[in-house]
Formats: sequence, structure tokens, C-alpha cells
Amino acid sequence: MANQNGKLLLTNAYVLSMDGALRQYASGYVATEGALITSVGPMSECPPASGFTEVLDCRDCAVLPGLINAHTHLPMTYFRGLADDLPLMSWLNDHIWPAEGEHLSPDFCYHATRLACLESIKSGVSCVNDMYLFAASVASAVADSGMRGFIGEGVIQFPTPSAPSWQDGLQLTRELITEYRGHPLVEPSVTCHAPYTCTPEILTTLHGLSREHGLLFHIHLSETRAEQGITEWLQNGESPAAGLARIGVLGPRTLGAHCVWVEQPDMALMATHGCAACHCPTSNLKLASGVAPTVAMLEAGVNVGLGTDGAASNNNLDMWEELHLASLLPKGILLDAEALPAQQAVRLATSGGAAALGDKRIGVLEGGRLADICVINLATPHTTPRYTHESAIYSYLAYSSQAADVKHTIVNGRLLMRDREVLSLNEAAVLREATDWLAGGAG
Amino acid sequence: MANQNGKLLLTNAYVLSMDGALRQYASGYVATEGALITSVGPMSECPPASGFTEVLDCRDCAVLPGLINAHTHLPMTYFRGLADDLPLMSWLNDHIWPAEGEHLSPDFCYHATRLACLESIKSGVSCVNDMYLFAASVASAVADSGMRGFIGEGVIQFPTPSAPSWQDGLQLTRELITEYRGHPLVEPSVTCHAPYTCTPEILTTLHGLSREHGLLFHIHLSETRAEQGITEWLQNGESPAAGLARIGVLGPRTLGAHCVWVEQPDMALMATHGCAACHCPTSNLKLASGVAPTVAMLEAGVNVGLGTDGAASNNNLDMWEELHLASLLPKGILLDAEALPAQQAVRLATSGGAAALGDKRIGVLEGGRLADICVINLATPHTTPRYTHESAIYSYLAYSSQAADVKHTIVNGRLLMRDREVLSLNEAAVLREATDWLAGGAG
Repeated sequence: MANQNGKLLLTNAYVLSMDGALRQYASGYVATEGALITSVGPMSECPPASGFTEVLDCRDCAVLPGLINAHTHLPMTYFRGLADDLPLMSWLNDHIWPAEGEHLSPDFCYHATRLACLESIKSGVSCVNDMYLFAASVASAVADSGMRGFIGEGVIQFPTPSAPSWQDGLQLTRELITEYRGHPLVEPSVTCHAPYTCTPEILTTLHGLSREHGLLFHIHLSETRAEQGITEWLQNGESPAAGLARIGVLGPRTLGAHCVWVEQPDMALMATHGCAACHCPTSNLKLASGVAPTVAMLEAGVNVGLGTDGAASNNNLDMWEELHLASLLPKGILLDAEALPAQQAVRLATSGGAAALGDKRIGVLEGGRLADICVINLATPHTTPRYTHESAIYSYLAYSSQAADVKHTIVNGRLLMRDREVLSLNEAAVLREATDWLAGGAG
Repeated sequence: MANQNGKLLLTNAYVLSMDGALRQYASGYVATEGALITSVGPMSECPPASGFTEVLDCRDCAVLPGLINAHTHLPMTYFRGLADDLPLMSWLNDHIWPAEGEHLSPDFCYHATRLACLESIKSGVSCVNDMYLFAASVASAVADSGMRGFIGEGVIQFPTPSAPSWQDGLQLTRELITEYRGHPLVEPSVTCHAPYTCTPEILTTLHGLSREHGLLFHIHLSETRAEQGITEWLQNGESPAAGLARIGVLGPRTLGAHCVWVEQPDMALMATHGCAACHCPTSNLKLASGVAPTVAMLEAGVNVGLGTDGAASNNNLDMWEELHLASLLPKGILLDAEALPAQQAVRLATSGGAAALGDKRIGVLEGGRLADICVINLATPHTTPRYTHESAIYSYLAYSSQAADVKHTIVNGRLLMRDREVLSLNEAAVLREATDWLAGGAG
């Protein structure tokens, strides 16, 4: 296949490394070989084009690490628009769970994930962190699309369409680990649905498995205000985070999705144990969960990533919208225009997501890291004119750009989208699959 | 010029009338002649194509009224990215006002408005309500772009680059009225900057002029919490809205932009006097002004429109982002997933904006209204699959669509954009003008 891990050279770009020093080159290059970035620097140090498989002139573009969607449920794309503007419990009980019960299968999850990957690649997302059912199908669709993914089977104390018991979910997780250990794109993760849907036995067993294999432990945490009250095993009014800490599953590779209702002591615990958070602002607003205290979490030293959640509660997988909201919401809520400046929002979507996932290979553009890269066009009406002070570029990305401005997406050194044409998936076929599925009586 | 007020026929579309009954046709048509819509209905009643200048097959598209940006400062596009993430007063005093003092001129305002119109047309906006300086230049650029605009000279008690005194601002307003009375696209408005920057004499004089001519009276109202304290002429702790009501300028063609800090009695006053509000969620978040109580305003009977504010505090003119936020924010803030459902958000951006501007000719698709139309592509990964219950279409528009999905924009019966190619402006030239302006030492 074309551009499968060749040598790529991106030239004349506005390069944002997103490294600790926030190094940037207003006219810079990025060179890759195989799956890795070999070097990044100013155009004055650009290697000669002759040694590369393909040279992409990125004039008028920003080049940044591929965006990391640190919490999602990819197969839910097929439920996008099924039911909206409803209270969480009615949305779940009356619509989502019945639809999942009726439709979920390995085939469903494979195809619905393909649609999610198509949308993700078109918006510059290189890596997703997924929690759903039939994770083997999700993993296989992600790998086939060329994207990078942390993929886990959502284990829960009730029967699911993929696992009659939590022990079956555990077994599916073990099989996923066996199948994908060392895979270049898919990293298996260990996934418990939430403190309120898993007993301490499930949580400690699964967390033990994640520690045994050094894998991510992914769990919903304090998404709604009600969660504390409905988590039966909590003691003496402790918070879900405190409960997880007590039973020993709060870190160091634990990622808590949402964290809307964590309070100061929870954040201190999370920072101490190395538990990361994933902020999902659109979904938290749409499901009326609230607004996560991201500024306080960052100040407490918690690693924070950014995610879309599933397409049924968003209703898209557009990380640019999450990036806008991550920067805008704290300002309006805290009445502080300096809260979470643009560059910090871009960081959450890139290096912050990598830190939250505990993966040092991604999220930063520099020699030796994996070549996961987003190239976004800045020659648009909505990003013109372009001021040149160092912080301006982050403002354009955080406040002005939109997903459709993404021009090329590169994962593991491979071009998955060139000039908005997705190369690793047949866009028309993927859309037709989804439309045919719904027309086939599913809706 | 091509398609200047010909006869257009839009076929096979998902037509959203946005009329009071929210009539919709899953397979419908819209017919226009000259500046007007002649009929709207199901495809079964579609007139024969032979009688039309141009037939647009809108298969897989939604056709809705052109979006109405009910509060903006168009020429501020040239200050996009100049300064961000700053407290309001430092942003204004140290950056925006000095830049305006240095650069504002009729020529600047003409060209910066062209860029704003280009961006607006590309995102399906057909009508803008603008408040800025050198309004004659703004009006002329809007008219030249083919867009519809309510345009006013921002009158204020201090000298401005366009008017040494408020009386000069008044005179500019009079001239604007004389020049644009009866213009097919530009409706002059009477514009006072804000209660805290205008004396009662200025407010009543200008409001009197608006009544004399039956024009819109456009003013910033309760944008920040500080406004009440810095409005010197208020009495006995009255709110800005109460003060405006006392001096007789709160309605019925008054539009208050922002209304973030209006309280229940203010809303009752606004509803009684027919004073409308324009909600600008992105700008209110970004400048840390807060979140306007839109649900309460709507419940109180206030007409509410939606706007972007200027591109320097947004930082784009993307009404789709405002539409998303208008629906998402109340849910997350009020912890009520049923607050401001998707169809109501689409309404704010169309018929709601028309009502806020007091213009019955726009904002709804039906025979006899002006042919201001937005055609948006739904065959995208992020709007697939498409459920078909009546409310689903609003969910796709409010939660999933993005500005780049807009396919055609029609204003006054004229195609301003066809298949994303802007016909009424030279896109490359407009971008180059802006870039050259900044490169010419302006930055």
C-alpha cells in the first residue's frame, strides 16, 4: 500500500512540537522514517528532499502531533442521532441500552468503528482510547484503518451483549492482550465501566491484570453528581476516587474518564497516585453532567487529556470542538479570561492526552517519537490574517480552526489522509455501510 | 452577473421551514423568483424544472433559512488573533483600542468586512447585524458581497476614529439612513455602544431617531457583571435594562447584545417592552463575561437571536459553533438535558434571529418571504447514519454539522456560493488583501 511506513518529509510548515519547552518553528520541517520521526527543525536545517519517499509541502499549514481522543466509544457512531435532548437515565434506559441489546455484534462493532475511524482521520485524530464491547472487533477495525488505538473490553457486573458475566469480560480482555501484545498500532487496555457498575472484586481483579501487563486501566469516574450515591460499596460517604484509592486501583496507569464531580481531595489523591483524567466537555454538557474542574485538576498536578466520548452523546468525534470548549469553558465558568489559555488547550489534545494515557511515544513532535502527525490548513478565511507572535498560532488552532481544515493525517509514519482524501478507508463504502445498516430496519 | 435574482429551484432536499409549526419535508423543494421564495413543499408538488434559471439537486442536503448572525463587528476580522487569553480591560485598553486607533479607516473597514462576508457566506450566514465604526464602508462591503445586513454606526460618548463627537456619530447615522433607506440588502440601524458609554441624552436622541424611521436600535446590554457599577446615570441601584426602560429606550425595536447578566425583572421588562436579546456564547465565554440565561429569557417571552460577536473575541464568525453552544451550555449549566433542545437552537439561529431583528421577511422558508437560504450537506462521516424521526434532523444540525458542510448560500434569491465556491467575492483576493495588510507593518 502507498506510503506504508516510507520516508516522509514535511516542509515549509509552521511546526508545533508540543514538547515541554513548546518549541515552534514558523518555517520548519518534520522528517520521518518507518514508524518514527527522525528529526524536526527549522527549514534552514531541512535534509535534502532526494532521500525521501514523499515530500509534502506544508506551506500555510500548521504541523502538530496527531490529536489524541483520550476517551471514546467508537461503535456508537451508528447510534448518532438515535435519541437526544433527554435526561441521562431515560436516554440510557429507553434508547441506548435497548438499541445496544438489539444490535450489538462483532460485525456491528467492526463497521461502526470504521465510520468512527473515518471521521477521526478526517479531523486529524491519530490515536483513540476506546472502551466498548466486542473490543476485538473494535481493535481490528482500528488497526485496519491505520489508526493508533488503546482498546479495551468494557467490563461491568451485569451481562452485556458480548459477555454474559464479568468473568467473561475478563476473559475477553485476556484474549485481547494475547492477540495485540506488541502490535504496532493497537495497545490493549483493561477497562472497567465505572465504580457504580463494578464491585470491588471486579475492579481489583481487572486492575491487577493491568498492572501485571503494564497496561492502561480505563474507567468512567465521577461523570455525574449522582455517582457517589449509587456506588454501593463506598464507605462513610467517601467519593468514588477515594473509594478507588482505598481498594488500590487509582493509579499509576489509571485513566478516569469525565471527572466532572471530583473535588479538591480527589484531585490530590489522583495526583498522588498518578491517576489521569479525560475531559469530555461536549458530552458532559449535552448529557447535563456538568463542567469538569479542569483548571483545578491541572493545578493539582493531574494529567488531563481530552476526549469526545461516544458519538451518541456528542454527536460527533470532532476533537477540534473539544479543544475549543476546553479553552472556552473555564474562562466563562470561572470568569477568568486567562484560565486555560489556547496553548494549554492544544496541549491537552496532544501531549496531555499522551501523558494521560501514559504513552511517551506519542503527543510530541521530536526525533525518536512515533510519527503521528496532523497537518492543518491555515489559509482559510476564518484563520486569516495571521499574527505572528508565538502564542498566536495556538489561538488560531484553539479558537478559529475547524476539523475540515485538516489536510493530511499521518499515523505511524503512514499517510492515512492526503489533501483530505482518506487513503486507508474507502469513504463512500464506509458511509454506504452505515446508511444500509440503518435502512435495513435498524432505525 | 450570474444568478442575480433569477428563478432557482432546489429539489430533493430535507427542507426545514423553521415556521411556527416547524413544518419539514424529508423530500421537499424550494422555489424562488427574484428576491422571493415563491413556494416550498414536498417533492410531490414540485413545479416543473423547465421554468427555472437554475435547478440545484439538494439530495442528501438540509435546506433551511440562511443563518442570521444577530450581533457582530465585522471589520474586527483583521484583529483576529491580535491578542487573546487576556482580561477584558487589558484586552481592550492595551490591544484592541490602540489597534483601532492606529488602523481604522474607511478603507480598513471595507476590506476587513469583505473578509467577514467571505467567511459568513462560506458558513451559510445570509444576514448579519453589525455595529462598528465607518458604517458606510461596512454597509458598502456587505452590499457588494451580496449579503443582507443591518448596519449601524456605533455611537459613543467619546471620540472615535470615525466621529470626533457623538453628534458626529449621530450625523453619520443620519447619512447612513439617507443612503440606504429602501436598499434591497442593507437596512440601516441606529446603534449606541452601551449604557455605560452613552449618556441618557445620547441614548434618547438616537433611540428617537430609530423610532422616527422605524429602524432597529442596537446596543450592548449587560455583557459583564461590572456593567451596572460603571453606568453612572443609573439610579437607586437599578439595572442597565431598568435604566433603559426608565428613559424609554428599551423597545420595541431595541436589540440588546449579550444580556449575560440580566435578571428576572430585567427579562420581564424586556418582554413587556419588546426588547430582544442576542446571545453570543463563544465570545461571552472567551472574554470571561459568563453564560447568558437564555432559557429564562425565552421562558420570559424575550425574542432571542444568536451571534458571534467580533472575530477578535471569538475568534471566528462560525454560527454553527454558536448554534452548538446555544444548545449545549444550558444543559450543562442548568444540569437539565432537556434544556434548549436542538430544534430550539436551530430556531435561534434562523427565525429567532429574524424576530430579534424585528424582520418578518427573513428567517423562515415559505412563499412570500425573502429567498435567504442555506443548503448544508448531510452526506458526511459526522452526520452519518441519519435517523429519520422528526427531531433527528435538528440534532444533526445542532450537534454534528460544521460550517464547512455548507454547500450553497443564497441571499435575496441570488446564489452567493455554489458547491463551496463563493461567486460574489474573489476568495483568493480577499485573503491576499488581509495578508498584505498585516504584512504591510500592521502587525
